[in-house]
Amino acid sequence: MSSSFATKFAIPEIIFGNGSINHLASCARGLGARRILLVSDQGVEDAGWVQVVMDILDQNSLECVYFNEIDSNPRDSQVHAGLEIYLAEGADVIVALGGGSPMDTAKGIGIIAGNGGNISDYEGANRIKRPLPPMIFAPTTAGSGSDMTQYSIITDVSRQVKMTVISRSLVPNISIIDPTMLRTKTEELIIASAVDALAHAVESYVSRLSSPFTDHHALQAIRLFVENLERAVEYRDPKALEQLSIASTAAGMSFSNAGLGALHSLAHSLGGMFDVLHGLVHPILLPAVMRFNMPHSLEKMAVIGRILLGPCPHSDEYAAEEGIHQLETLFKSLNVPTRLGEILPDPEVLEPICKMAVYDACTLTNPCDVTWEDLQSICKEAW
Amino acid sequence: MSSSFATKFAIPEIIFGNGSINHLASCARGLGARRILLVSDQGVEDAGWVQVVMDILDQNSLECVYFNEIDSNPRDSQVHAGLEIYLAEGADVIVALGGGSPMDTAKGIGIIAGNGGNISDYEGANRIKRPLPPMIFAPTTAGSGSDMTQYSIITDVSRQVKMTVISRSLVPNISIIDPTMLRTKTEELIIASAVDALAHAVESYVSRLSSPFTDHHALQAIRLFVENLERAVEYRDPKALEQLSIASTAAGMSFSNAGLGALHSLAHSLGGMFDVLHGLVHPILLPAVMRFNMPHSLEKMAVIGRILLGPCPHSDEYAAEEGIHQLETLFKSLNVPTRLGEILPDPEVLEPICKMAVYDACTLTNPCDVTWEDLQSICKEAW
Repeated sequence: MSSSFATKFAIPEIIFGNGSINHLASCARGLGARRILLVSDQGVEDAGWVQVVMDILDQNSLECVYFNEIDSNPRDSQVHAGLEIYLAEGADVIVALGGGSPMDTAKGIGIIAGNGGNISDYEGANRIKRPLPPMIFAPTTAGSGSDMTQYSIITDVSRQVKMTVISRSLVPNISIIDPTMLRTKTEELIIASAVDALAHAVESYVSRLSSPFTDHHALQAIRLFVENLERAVEYRDPKALEQLSIASTAAGMSFSNAGLGALHSLAHSLGGMFDVLHGLVHPILLPAVMRFNMPHSLEKMAVIGRILLGPCPHSDEYAAEEGIHQLETLFKSLNVPTRLGEILPDPEVLEPICKMAVYDACTLTNPCDVTWEDLQSICKEAW
Repeated sequence: MSSSFATKFAIPEIIFGNGSINHLASCARGLGARRILLVSDQGVEDAGWVQVVMDILDQNSLECVYFNEIDSNPRDSQVHAGLEIYLAEGADVIVALGGGSPMDTAKGIGIIAGNGGNISDYEGANRIKRPLPPMIFAPTTAGSGSDMTQYSIITDVSRQVKMTVISRSLVPNISIIDPTMLRTKTEELIIASAVDALAHAVESYVSRLSSPFTDHHALQAIRLFVENLERAVEYRDPKALEQLSIASTAAGMSFSNAGLGALHSLAHSLGGMFDVLHGLVHPILLPAVMRFNMPHSLEKMAVIGRILLGPCPHSDEYAAEEGIHQLETLFKSLNVPTRLGEILPDPEVLEPICKMAVYDACTLTNPCDVTWEDLQSICKEAW
């Protein structure tokens, strides 16, 4: 019994399906809710979903206080503003409705409600010691995976850095995934979310902490992305949107437990300094990061390549390289920025971005060691 | 928001890997343990694993009381005997170490500890209203999947029936899966367990409650079974045993959430009247049940067939039928009974077995309706 390698795998209880949001009240009651803090944002409100949720709670005699002051890259000050409402109103269960931003903010509120202090005290892995209030998350995008994961990403405004907080206790109790909510999203948001899910799947699949439990979900996510993206974006096909929702969930299960890599380190650093939509960084940087990592995870990159290309009788090198090329072609066809120069003002900013990124928690699980100079050459390749 | 189809998916937190049992004490502490009820059986004790676990707890200053009076088809009276020890000794966390029998007994003890009454009060689905004590399960076989599931199967001795109890609260808090424990098992037990896992995967894959979340795990389990059974049985290859362990876990995730079918109804009924090793019923009855269900789940049976046969360019009918045939050939090669006449005394017993089986909770999720007469003709085909 001397060796003691152990891989951990934890996910929330999942309720999935069109109309599953109607189960929210009974789930909240099961967790002992009497007064719910509902965390969402203006976009979700405009689409009508906040009202839908408030009506469900009201019809089931559950009190609800509402917090929506959240940016697309949520800030430490917003976490603390939400916390004040949670405490002042005596809420007992947190419900997040939205994409990654409301969900990550809700996690931040839960951290401080249960543990005190400031959100920056918990940056990094496993620094949360006491339990959080019960949390139920209802994602309205198919991408962030935050409803599955141990991750919360919050911007520290004073340091201009996106902090990565990782802890088992950030997995919500219940995730209610209702794909009907995706139908009100813009094309840009569907793409940004789906590409984020793909990036989660690819990075966690080659991660140093990947396991048979996570690999399996990562590959399912990549397959579903390839099979459904076009129909979801072009025709807003409900069935394809549902499949993207499953892809995002599977990718979340994978990266929550296996970790990510250099792409997300860069995306967090970049998003901390420039307020860009997180998912739109990946079409620019994913191919370059994959090329950089290829020698260290050739076999797995070839598996990804063969999913992208279809059956491919060539060598692993060929399948891996052509797979990346195929991804680049796909990203170009989506009419989103594919060069870093399109979203950043000046190559001068790369040095501080990369110097910060190398300290992000995601760097630790990249399949090979990376220096800030490595990150800079990746960025230059993608400029 | 009128339609409200929702599929639920819940699994425990998983810790997996060779040596992962060493994490038991810290897991128990995390759940607030001070005095643990350890539930196991003579076979696991003889293999030395009970002592290993007691030492781990002792080295970490956790008190432990021990209960091992469990048959291979655990009885209601044994649940109540274990409960008495739990209460008399003031235990606060239940740890089960073993195959399905100790784990199902531990669940039974937890049910009564949290809810009072008799175990038969909870037969069927969703009849448990109050929470159970925290539970950590460490499976020593790769088959029952009880460490993943909402199921507990306990024999009601007076009625000679295996009761199926199903509830979300029967999913343990943590499952510690250490494949090194499989290395001490007999060939018969490895086969019986692996075939049980296969049966869980097949029945849940075609179940009426199957979903994209469960399908995915069911197919992974079938693939891993096919790829690893021979090497695990013949050469006791540690890598193959580890893969069977993953197969059993995946099958457990699937059937816990999708349910089973007529095969398990029959196996439970048969096991209630005759004390046969549960897993050894499946090589006899699985092919016949698959043939009966084939017209109602042809497409999925063809997917299974193509995993068993390898790429198969023929029709779904051919792939499904030949897949079943391939399974029969495989079972024959394992030197286990493959005809019902080999394990039952007389065809006269079929009528009471089938009349009881039709009321088992597993019958509800079979892909088509079944009468007791249907079950009887399945059994006669397999006699």
